Amino acid sequence: MKAVWKTQPEEGLEIRETQVPKIKEDQVLVKVKATSICGTDMHIYKWDEWAQKRIGKNIPYIFGHEMSGEIVEVGKNTNGLVMGDHVSAETHISCGYCFQCRTGNEHICENVKILGVDTNGTFAEYVALPYRNAWKNDKKIPHWVATAQEPLGNAVHTVFDGEIAGKTVTIFGMGPIGVCAVGLCKAAGAAKIIAIDRHELRLKFAKDFGADVIVDTSKEKDVKKTIMSETDGRGADVFLEMAGTSEAFNMGIQTLRAGGRASILGVFPKPFEVDMTQIVFKGIKLSGINGRKMFDTWYTAKSLLSSGKIDLKKLVTHKFKLTDIEKGFETLIKREGMKVVIEP
Amino acid sequence: MKAVWKTQPEEGLEIRETQVPKIKEDQVLVKVKATSICGTDMHIYKWDEWAQKRIGKNIPYIFGHEMSGEIVEVGKNTNGLVMGDHVSAETHISCGYCFQCRTGNEHICENVKILGVDTNGTFAEYVALPYRNAWKNDKKIPHWVATAQEPLGNAVHTVFDGEIAGKTVTIFGMGPIGVCAVGLCKAAGAAKIIAIDRHELRLKFAKDFGADVIVDTSKEKDVKKTIMSETDGRGADVFLEMAGTSEAFNMGIQTLRAGGRASILGVFPKPFEVDMTQIVFKGIKLSGINGRKMFDTWYTAKSLLSSGKIDLKKLVTHKFKLTDIEKGFETLIKREGMKVVIEP
Amino acid sequence: MKAVWKTQPEEGLEIRETQVPKIKEDQVLVKVKATSICGTDMHIYKWDEWAQKRIGKNIPYIFGHEMSGEIVEVGKNTNGLVMGDHVSAETHISCGYCFQCRTGNEHICENVKILGVDTNGTFAEYVALPYRNAWKNDKKIPHWVATAQEPLGNAVHTVFDGEIAGKTVTIFGMGPIGVCAVGLCKAAGAAKIIAIDRHELRLKFAKDFGADVIVDTSKEKDVKKTIMSETDGRGADVFLEMAGTSEAFNMGIQTLRAGGRASILGVFPKPFEVDMTQIVFKGIKLSGINGRKMFDTWYTAKSLLSSGKIDLKKLVTHKFKLTDIEKGFETLIKREGMKVVIEP
Amino acid sequence: MKAVWKTQPEEGLEIRETQVPKIKEDQVLVKVKATSICGTDMHIYKWDEWAQKRIGKNIPYIFGHEMSGEIVEVGKNTNGLVMGDHVSAETHISCGYCFQCRTGNEHICENVKILGVDTNGTFAEYVALPYRNAWKNDKKIPHWVATAQEPLGNAVHTVFDGEIAGKTVTIFGMGPIGVCAVGLCKAAGAAKIIAIDRHELRLKFAKDFGADVIVDTSKEKDVKKTIMSETDGRGADVFLEMAGTSEAFNMGIQTLRAGGRASILGVFPKPFEVDMTQIVFKGIKLSGINGRKMFDTWYTAKSLLSSGKIDLKKLVTHKFKLTDIEKGFETLIKREGMKVVIEP
Repeated sequence: MKAVWKTQPEEGLEIRETQVPKIKEDQVLVKVKATSICGTDMHIYKWDEWAQKRIGKNIPYIFGHEMSGEIVEVGKNTNGLVMGDHVSAETHISCGYCFQCRTGNEHICENVKILGVDTNGTFAEYVALPYRNAWKNDKKIPHWVATAQEPLGNAVHTVFDGEIAGKTVTIFGMGPIGVCAVGLCKAAGAAKIIAIDRHELRLKFAKDFGADVIVDTSKEKDVKKTIMSETDGRGADVFLEMAGTSEAFNMGIQTLRAGGRASILGVFPKPFEVDMTQIVFKGIKLSGINGRKMFDTWYTAKSLLSSGKIDLKKLVTHKFKLTDIEKGFETLIKREGMKVVIEP
Repeated sequence: MKAVWKTQPEEGLEIRETQVPKIKEDQVLVKVKATSICGTDMHIYKWDEWAQKRIGKNIPYIFGHEMSGEIVEVGKNTNGLVMGDHVSAETHISCGYCFQCRTGNEHICENVKILGVDTNGTFAEYVALPYRNAWKNDKKIPHWVATAQEPLGNAVHTVFDGEIAGKTVTIFGMGPIGVCAVGLCKAAGAAKIIAIDRHELRLKFAKDFGADVIVDTSKEKDVKKTIMSETDGRGADVFLEMAGTSEAFNMGIQTLRAGGRASILGVFPKPFEVDMTQIVFKGIKLSGINGRKMFDTWYTAKSLLSSGKIDLKKLVTHKFKLTDIEKGFETLIKREGMKVVIEP
Repeated sequence: MKAVWKTQPEEGLEIRETQVPKIKEDQVLVKVKATSICGTDMHIYKWDEWAQKRIGKNIPYIFGHEMSGEIVEVGKNTNGLVMGDHVSAETHISCGYCFQCRTGNEHICENVKILGVDTNGTFAEYVALPYRNAWKNDKKIPHWVATAQEPLGNAVHTVFDGEIAGKTVTIFGMGPIGVCAVGLCKAAGAAKIIAIDRHELRLKFAKDFGADVIVDTSKEKDVKKTIMSETDGRGADVFLEMAGTSEAFNMGIQTLRAGGRASILGVFPKPFEVDMTQIVFKGIKLSGINGRKMFDTWYTAKSLLSSGKIDLKKLVTHKFKLTDIEKGFETLIKREGMKVVIEP
Repeated sequence: MKAVWKTQPEEGLEIRETQVPKIKEDQVLVKVKATSICGTDMHIYKWDEWAQKRIGKNIPYIFGHEMSGEIVEVGKNTNGLVMGDHVSAETHISCGYCFQCRTGNEHICENVKILGVDTNGTFAEYVALPYRNAWKNDKKIPHWVATAQEPLGNAVHTVFDGEIAGKTVTIFGMGPIGVCAVGLCKAAGAAKIIAIDRHELRLKFAKDFGADVIVDTSKEKDVKKTIMSETDGRGADVFLEMAGTSEAFNMGIQTLRAGGRASILGVFPKPFEVDMTQIVFKGIKLSGINGRKMFDTWYTAKSLLSSGKIDLKKLVTHKFKLTDIEKGFETLIKREGMKVVIEP
C-alpha cells in the first residue's frame, strides 16, 4: 500500500510503498477512505521543536490520525465489529486499566499512546486500529465528512464542559475546532456567540457557522471594549480558548464575567503571565480540556451529526489524493484552507 | 379599577369595581397590560377540592398571576425600578431570609406566598408587586407575549435541570408548559424530541414548536413499544413529566434509559404506585421541579426570548377583554385554546 | 476443591467436591481466603420468588460473590496482576463496550453478568475472575475484613452520591450496608446521623459505628415527629434508603427537607404508593443507586480503609468453615449476626 | 465608645472616642464582644500598596471586620433578629439585587461593599450591621471563638468546592485559613492531608489540626519529590492554594494529579508565569474562591462548629484589650501568633 512516512528529522514527508499492516486479535484493519490534516500533523511536517522532542525517537513511521474508513478485516476479539462497518479513529489509545481509565477519565490515561504520533497512523491506504478505538459511524455520513469528527469531538468536549443554552460565549481561535465550537454553540441555543481571530478567512467561516459577532483582532483597536459592550458591560458567561496564545487567554479572562466558565483547549508554546488574582476575585471556574471524553463526547457528536444539528461539510475546503498530500500541507501553511481532506 | 374576584365558595368569578392598591415602600404599582390564565386559575375558577383546601380562607380576593405590565408608581426602596419599566411577576413571594432563601433556593422558600393565591393577583387593571418580584422585561417583547414568561420559566427550569444538547427527550403533557419545553429542547439542540399527549390540538402545537415525534396516546396501541423503537431500544436520555398523571409518570420511567434523567414538574392528584426498584436498578436521577429558580431561570428565559431562540407568540390562541374573562375560562375548559390572554 | 452448590429448586444448598476452574486468557485464578454471605445469597438459599425467577435456569451452579483471596494463576492478558496479589471481586461483570460502559457507567452495563448469580461464584476454594473484576487489595487488610468491601462499596456509592460534611442524615435499614453507611457518614463529617431500624441488635451496631440518634421503629410511637424534632423541624438534608420497604421510603421522603437529597439503594419487593407531588413541591433530588461505580467507588473505599477512616472489623460477627456454611445462613435467618464470613 | 481608626495615610492606627453608630431600619446595633485581626487588617495597618489604592479615599474610618457580639438594638425591618442574639458579621455587604445576587452568587455581588474596608468596621465597642449580614451564632460558642468563623468560612468555601472524603489533599499556606482547612479536611475524611509552609510555628499548628504530612519548604530540598512520593507518584487529588505565592501555585499544579481539583483562595501580589499547557493536558479543574458563599458556607460552618467536628479554640493564640490592639498587630508582624483576638 501507499503511505506517508516521516523519515528524516527535518521538514517534509516521504510517500513510500509499504506492506499492509497485520492486525492483532483485538484490532481491526481499516481501508482508509478519507483522512485529514490536523495541527499536530503540521508540527510533524514542519519538524518544529515540539515534534523533535515528542517524536524524534519514533521516525521512521507513518503519521496522520483523523480518519474515516471501512473495516476490511476483524481480529478475534473485536466485540461485534464486522467487515463493512464505517469507522473513525479515537486517537487516544488508552490502557483501559489505570486509575484514570477506571474512573471515567480514559482521555487522560496514564499510559496513553497517540495514533499517528506513537504508532503508525492514518495517512495510508490501510491502518490497524484497536477495536476500542474504532468508532462506528452512521453510514449516511460521507467519509470525507466523518473524518472531521475528531476535531468536532474536541469542540464538543470543550463546549459542553458546562451550560450553553441562553449563554453569551466568547470563542478565541477560529481554526477548524473553533469553527466547530461556533456551530455547536449555535445548535445548542447560545444567546450570543462572539468569535475572535485575526484572519479574515477564518472569521468568514465563523460567520458562516453562526457567530453573532465577529472580532478581527488585526483590525479592532480595543478588543476588550468591544467584547464588554457586546456583553452588557458584564462580560461573557462562557469563554472558550482555542487559539493557544497568551493574548487570547488573558483577553478571555478579562472579558469573562464574575462566576463565569473558562474552558481551555488551546496548547500554549510556553508558560506565560496570568493575573491569577483576577481569576480568584471573579470566582472563575476554569477547566483544562484534553482530547475527547471516551466516549461520551463521541456519542454526543454522533447524535448531533446524525440529527443534522451540525453540518461539517462546509468545513472541508480541499480534497487531495494521497500522492498529493504535500499540496494539502502547503494550502494550510498559506492559510488558504480550513479542513484539508486526503482521499487515498 | 376593574378586577376579577373570587367571592363565593363555588364555581365562577365576579367582576367588581375596586380601589387601585396602595403600595408599600418596597413595592411597585403595575398597570396590567396583559394577564393570562394558568392551570391554577382553572382550579380556582372551578373551585375543585384543591382550591377549597388551599384558598378557602382567602376569599374574597382577586386571583390571577401571569402578567406583563408597566410600572406607574414606585415605592421608596425599589432598587432602581422606574416608572415606565415593563415588568412581569415572579409568582413566588419569598421571605428572602429563611434557610432556603439564603442558600440559593428561594423558589422553595419556607415562608413563600403565591401571588394570586395568597395575595391579590393580576386579573385586574393594577397590581401591587414587591420590587423583588417585578422582573424587568425587554421592551421589544409585546405584553401579550411577555405574560407567557411565567409558564416558559417552568419549562426552562425543567428542561435545563440537566443536559439537553444531543439528547433524546420524552415530554409528557402538551399544555402550555409542555409546548414551551418542546421549543426549548429544539432551541437547545436536543437530538430527538418525542411529545406525548392525548389531545389532537395540543399535539399540533407540539409539532409546531419542533417535536420530532408525536405520540397520541388516545390512538397509539402500544405507547411503550413506539417510544422504545424511537430510541434505539435503549430508552430516552431525558424524561420530562408535565402531564401530572400516574400513567405518564410510569410510562416515562419505563421508557427512560438506564442512567437517564427524570425531571418531574407535574402535580399529581394523589399518591400512586411507583416501581421504585426500576428507578434503583436503572440508576435514574430524578428531580422534583417547583416553580422557577429565582432568578437564574428568568435570566435564561429572557436571554432565549430576546435572542429569538424561542418564540412564544404562537402559544397565544385567544385574547379577551377583562370583562370577557369567563369566555377565556370556557375556551380552556372546552380545550379549544392553548394560552388565553386577557387585556384589561 | 470444595464448593457450595445450588442444585435443587428449593431451600438449601449442597457442598460438593468439584474441579478447580480453568481460567481464560483474561482471567485470574483466586484461592478464596474469605467469602461472606450477602442478602442476595439469602434469597438464593431460601429460593424465594426472586431467586426462582432470576436464576431458575442457572442451577446447578456455585453461588456466593463477596470475597477476598490470593491470586494463584494468571492468564496471558491480565494487565500486570501477579501471583500472590490479594484481590476482592467486583461482582458486576460488565461487557466494557456498550453505551453505558463507554460513558462511565459500567455499573449499569447493558450486558452485565453478576458473579455468583449468572456465573459460578465464590463459595468455593477457588474462583476464576476476569482480571478487570479482580480488585487489588492492600495486603495490610486481613482477608476476613477485605471480603466486606463489596457491601462497603454499596454504602460508599450511596453516601457519596452527594455532599455529607456538615449535613444531617437519616439512614433507614441497619443491615451491613446501612451500618457501613453510618460509619462513612461519621468519617466524612456528617453533623448528625439518625439511624432507623426495628431490630435492637442492628441499632446497637449503628450506635457503635457512630450514629448520633437511634430510632427504633418497633418502639417509637411517632417516628416522623422524632425525626423532625431532631432536625430543627426542617427535615434532614440527606436521606439514605437501605431498608427496601415502602414504609422506610415514604417516611424518609416525609422527613427530608425541601431541596434535600434522597439516595435510594434499597430494593423493594413490589411497586408501592408514593406521594410524588411531595417530591415535586419539595424540589427533592432522588437517585437510584445500583452496585458500585466502577471503579471510583473502589478507589474511595480503598482509600478510606487504608487510611483507617473506617474499620470493618467490628462488622464481622461470625466466622465459619466452608463446610459449616449452613450455620452461617441460620445465624442470619435468626438475625443473630451482622456479617458472616466463611473461610474455605 | 472607643474605636480603632485609620486616620493617616501611613503605617499605624489611632484609638479615638467616638459616637456609637446610629442604625437604619434594616440594621442592628451590635455590642462587639470579640473582634480579630485578619490579613486584610495587616495591609491596612502597614498601609502597603494595596491599602493605599483600595482605601486611600476612605480614611479616616474605623477598620476591622472579624467579629462576634450581641445585638443591643434592632431596626424596624430586621426579620426577626432580637436583642440578645449573638451574631458574627458576613463581611460582604451585597446589594441583593444585581445579576450575581439573584443567581446564587451574592459573594461576588457587582456592587459589593466590604465591612471595615468600605464602611466603618468592628474594631470598636459597637458596630452597625445590615440585618442580612448579621449571622446568628449558637450561644454555646464563646465570642472569642465565634469571631474566627469568618476565616473558617473561607476555608469551608475552599475545602468543600469539591469532594474531600477519601482524597489526598495538598494545602499550601498555614495561616489561620490554611490551618482551618486542615481541620476541615480531617473532619471530612480526607485520606491524607499534606500541609506546606515555611514557618515552623505554623506547621506546628497544621500538625495539631490533623495534617498527616508536614512539608517545611525552608528545609525540604526537593518539595516536588516529597509530595509526589507521598501521593504514590500520581500527585494529589486536591490542591488548596492558601499561600498567595507563585511558588505555591506552581508547585501545587505540578503535584496535582491529572483530573485533579485546584481551589485557589490565595491573593497574589502580581501576575506570574503559569504553565497553562500543563493545566490543559492534565485536564485540571481550577476554581477561584472569593469570600464565603452566602450563606451556604455559613450554614456548613455553623453545623460543623455546633456538632464539634472542628474546634477553633486552639487557633486563638492571643487576646488583647481594644486599647492594646497594636500589641496584637506586632505579635502578628513578628509571626508569633496565629489568631489574635481583641476584646473591647
